[in-house]
Amino acid sequence: MDKLLYTGKVKQMWSTNDPEVLRVVYTDQATAGNGKKKDNFKDKAELNNQISTLIFQYLEKNGVPTHFIKKISDKEELVKKCEMFPLEVVTRNIAAGHFSSRYGLDEGMRFAIPVEELFFKSDELDDPILNSSDAVALNVATKSEQEQMWSLSRQVNQLLINLFDEAGMDLVDFKLEFGKLHNGQIVLADEFSPDNCRLWDKKTKSHMDKDVYRRDIGDLTAVYKKVLARIEEVLEED
Amino acid sequence: MDKLLYTGKVKQMWSTNDPEVLRVVYTDQATAGNGKKKDNFKDKAELNNQISTLIFQYLEKNGVPTHFIKKISDKEELVKKCEMFPLEVVTRNIAAGHFSSRYGLDEGMRFAIPVEELFFKSDELDDPILNSSDAVALNVATKSEQEQMWSLSRQVNQLLINLFDEAGMDLVDFKLEFGKLHNGQIVLADEFSPDNCRLWDKKTKSHMDKDVYRRDIGDLTAVYKKVLARIEEVLEED
Repeated sequence: MDKLLYTGKVKQMWSTNDPEVLRVVYTDQATAGNGKKKDNFKDKAELNNQISTLIFQYLEKNGVPTHFIKKISDKEELVKKCEMFPLEVVTRNIAAGHFSSRYGLDEGMRFAIPVEELFFKSDELDDPILNSSDAVALNVATKSEQEQMWSLSRQVNQLLINLFDEAGMDLVDFKLEFGKLHNGQIVLADEFSPDNCRLWDKKTKSHMDKDVYRRDIGDLTAVYKKVLARIEEVLEED
Repeated sequence: MDKLLYTGKVKQMWSTNDPEVLRVVYTDQATAGNGKKKDNFKDKAELNNQISTLIFQYLEKNGVPTHFIKKISDKEELVKKCEMFPLEVVTRNIAAGHFSSRYGLDEGMRFAIPVEELFFKSDELDDPILNSSDAVALNVATKSEQEQMWSLSRQVNQLLINLFDEAGMDLVDFKLEFGKLHNGQIVLADEFSPDNCRLWDKKTKSHMDKDVYRRDIGDLTAVYKKVLARIEEVLEED
């Protein structure tokens, strides 16, 4: 019998018959402000699953090792079991969100070199920022593990800047999570969807990500459907 | 006529006849919580000036370039004019203060490798933490300037761990500030006193720094006098 191993803000993780394989079940929930705001959106589970599946397949095809195995239903996928780093690994191409509020800057400035920030995943501590030596001191990740994560993040950034550019969107920033497989390899895990990145329409600069929910400025489901449709179009052409 | 160039929380900076030389005037003020708490202590100006003078002379003697020229009165010193980096360059040998509260850890854990943290000096933003790429993105310091500051900080840490150890104190953490001289050289600036470091008595673990004021657990003037006396004793032996 599959066991529920973990309930996150928008996903559940279940065991399977294979000890090295987990089943992810997406839910319709969206949260903001570290869970302070919470709502359900019809079709969100399917949309996140479908978008994340396409992105992970695209990344795998282009040489990024991930935990992804396959999508098995509208709301479910199979992934390789990882020991997760309790880290949010954030890359920023354009100033927005926390970066702008933390440093008192308008959103929209494009960085000459992408900004790379680590956050310590901890609901009680409200996910505080970590620098490289903090992460070492807290035994969260060694310098070498951090370098491997940044190396993969840079690869992901380059691939996805191009993908979203073809789909008419600027990849403003994104959050990745990484895990370690049984054999020690560090792989991209979690999901990639408009829940954990910022996408701005290249022409109108309108928000095409969870900011429409965070900031109450649009219809989350409609926006996620548009993102999916645009990515599908680009990927079908390839 | 000397002009008042800058009034900080505990010091004033004045121009002198020499455009490359400034006069620092220490005040009796102590502040905590980024200026939210403020009080005056008799003799504090003299104590900070005297302690900082001894420390800067000791560092200069041991090869650390600083802005310090000389002490000219009980409350005054002359320093080389610098273009200051708007940064607090913090080194932590033992967990305490902000580090402990940010990550939910008890004070007192000794780090295998010292923790190195940058903070952006901004009263309005409440001195937010900066990682290396944030500092580059904000045009605060290049990677190479950061490396030079860390290299000097590590030299200071090693020298002062030894000095305070001989004086019966653990150097828990400290904040440095750096500036650039006219010729481009990066030098240690600001002051070094129990205002901007944590010192714990090696035997009793009692606080011998501004925490006695921040936390209302002792007599600031008495403690600073004790620190001065102990350092003087060690330096006279050398």
